[in-house]
Amino acid sequence: MTRSERRAARIAVDLLGGDDAPAVVVDGALLALDADASLRLVPVGPPSVVDGLLARIPAALRSRVDPVPVDEGERTPVRTAVGLVAADRADAVISAGSTAATVTAAVAYCGRYPGLSRPALAVTVPARRGRLILLDVGASPSPDAADLVRHAVLGAAYAQATLDVPEPRVGLLSIGSEPGSGDTLRRTADGLLTAADLPAGRYVGLVEGHDVPLGGVEVVVTDGFTGNVLLKGVEGTLRLAGGRHAEGVPRAAALLGVGGPVVVCHGAAGGPDLASGIAFAARLVTDGVTDRVARIDHAFLRQDRAPGVPDREWTTGTGGRR
Amino acid sequence: MTRSERRAARIAVDLLGGDDAPAVVVDGALLALDADASLRLVPVGPPSVVDGLLARIPAALRSRVDPVPVDEGERTPVRTAVGLVAADRADAVISAGSTAATVTAAVAYCGRYPGLSRPALAVTVPARRGRLILLDVGASPSPDAADLVRHAVLGAAYAQATLDVPEPRVGLLSIGSEPGSGDTLRRTADGLLTAADLPAGRYVGLVEGHDVPLGGVEVVVTDGFTGNVLLKGVEGTLRLAGGRHAEGVPRAAALLGVGGPVVVCHGAAGGPDLASGIAFAARLVTDGVTDRVARIDHAFLRQDRAPGVPDREWTTGTGGRR
Repeated sequence: MTRSERRAARIAVDLLGGDDAPAVVVDGALLALDADASLRLVPVGPPSVVDGLLARIPAALRSRVDPVPVDEGERTPVRTAVGLVAADRADAVISAGSTAATVTAAVAYCGRYPGLSRPALAVTVPARRGRLILLDVGASPSPDAADLVRHAVLGAAYAQATLDVPEPRVGLLSIGSEPGSGDTLRRTADGLLTAADLPAGRYVGLVEGHDVPLGGVEVVVTDGFTGNVLLKGVEGTLRLAGGRHAEGVPRAAALLGVGGPVVVCHGAAGGPDLASGIAFAARLVTDGVTDRVARIDHAFLRQDRAPGVPDREWTTGTGGRR
Repeated sequence: MTRSERRAARIAVDLLGGDDAPAVVVDGALLALDADASLRLVPVGPPSVVDGLLARIPAALRSRVDPVPVDEGERTPVRTAVGLVAADRADAVISAGSTAATVTAAVAYCGRYPGLSRPALAVTVPARRGRLILLDVGASPSPDAADLVRHAVLGAAYAQATLDVPEPRVGLLSIGSEPGSGDTLRRTADGLLTAADLPAGRYVGLVEGHDVPLGGVEVVVTDGFTGNVLLKGVEGTLRLAGGRHAEGVPRAAALLGVGGPVVVCHGAAGGPDLASGIAFAARLVTDGVTDRVARIDHAFLRQDRAPGVPDREWTTGTGGRR
């Protein structure tokens, strides 16, 4: 049985991740179990926190929880949780802890896609017409042009798999939409992307900050520094403005380019946010999103016209798989 | 008579700057003249455009307009207009054309402040409590850490002069608020700013994208690439969300660090935006804002503890003054 055929997703949950952990993570786990009768959770944390969670789980739900206590001095819960995915003891992992720690653990234990130096964190944001994928929002603050090309491939594949758009339009974020706008990194990446043949989606050129809320493309590619600042600016502005979009930015993001579904949740996430994030992680598994993204990325690597990819070897972690 | 004592500001206007120039610039000039009876304009552009503007100006306003026709093949209108400030034939200049062209002309003709490699474009954005200054929003996409320190000095001085805050709080934009967050540039600049003694304002450390709409500081310093993307993202999100803040982001920004008041207007500015921009440029002169920023920057340079400033010589342009 492959992962995409499996009906009950097993989600490893980092109980210590998040500004208000473990309380909000425990709350989120309970909400998620209650909301999805097929969901299985693998909560990972110190024995006392695991016991506290188990004490709150109604007997009827208990059989769907397979906790992994981690003693102090062992690997951190997030590393242990990611390791469970690599070891096929969980199908996906979620943490609301430090993005850097989660990314490091994911690269170490699940491995990176062949020839990919840096993974990308992708978030779905509300736009004037529908939604769009913004990546990277913080996994790789200083990518090179080849990374941005691969992130475009991954983002387009992810948009095709999650937004139900047959040929997503992909833009590279810059400070002007005419060719040549922006810094050296954007000019180089724009040239590579113009020459590239994306297996899913179509590169349409440079876009600007306002294109993220206002649309016109389904995928916006940028470095993790700019993407993180922009995402938080959009989130804060929606909170400032109120109205129907105020709750519009999901607090969970998918890490693309690593050998397993890894979900990073906002550090300030509350219990309901964690529950949404767990449900999101489960959908990545049951809808086969991560597998589909991996297949499209593989198709890109197999073509002759994959510019800027210096090395096509699959970089495995200790338990990498694809 | 010094510039700050002069009551009638003379504003040089680039008639060819902007996506919809010259029509919207002509409209804006007429609106601005009508709104402020002490304003004097120096419109700069091709003779046919100047004639078109003059034909539309009521006789009663004509004495306040001192046009400078520029023949094709001469210096561009924006360069000519900036040159008028350097030559003291205008007190300030405004262009809605290419930011890069305006910045280049400003540096060439008005000169930069001593020891400053790159100027910064500062914009005032609405925040939950009041307003804040975001800089740089596009003049210098790739600054170094010393530039960011000077931009903090300039931004704090500008906030003190325009927001009526005695000691503006200054934050450095990053992707995490703990010391050490972000890339090498932020870590270096954070160290320099922590050691610096700002003559106006107080450095409070790293801030994040949501702090721009939600406040907590009065000045947010970042590189021109990130700042431009964030500003346009906030603008677009306010348009998406509608509501009371929808028209909240001004379409004019002040270029700080050059030897004269230079205002850059949004390329998509309409006539009323241009009129607001002209009025904004006039206030920079009549309120003595530019002079005050220059004095505060000078105080920073004179102290012993001005870290990261490699060279304290005043970089003059062809007509630099301070």
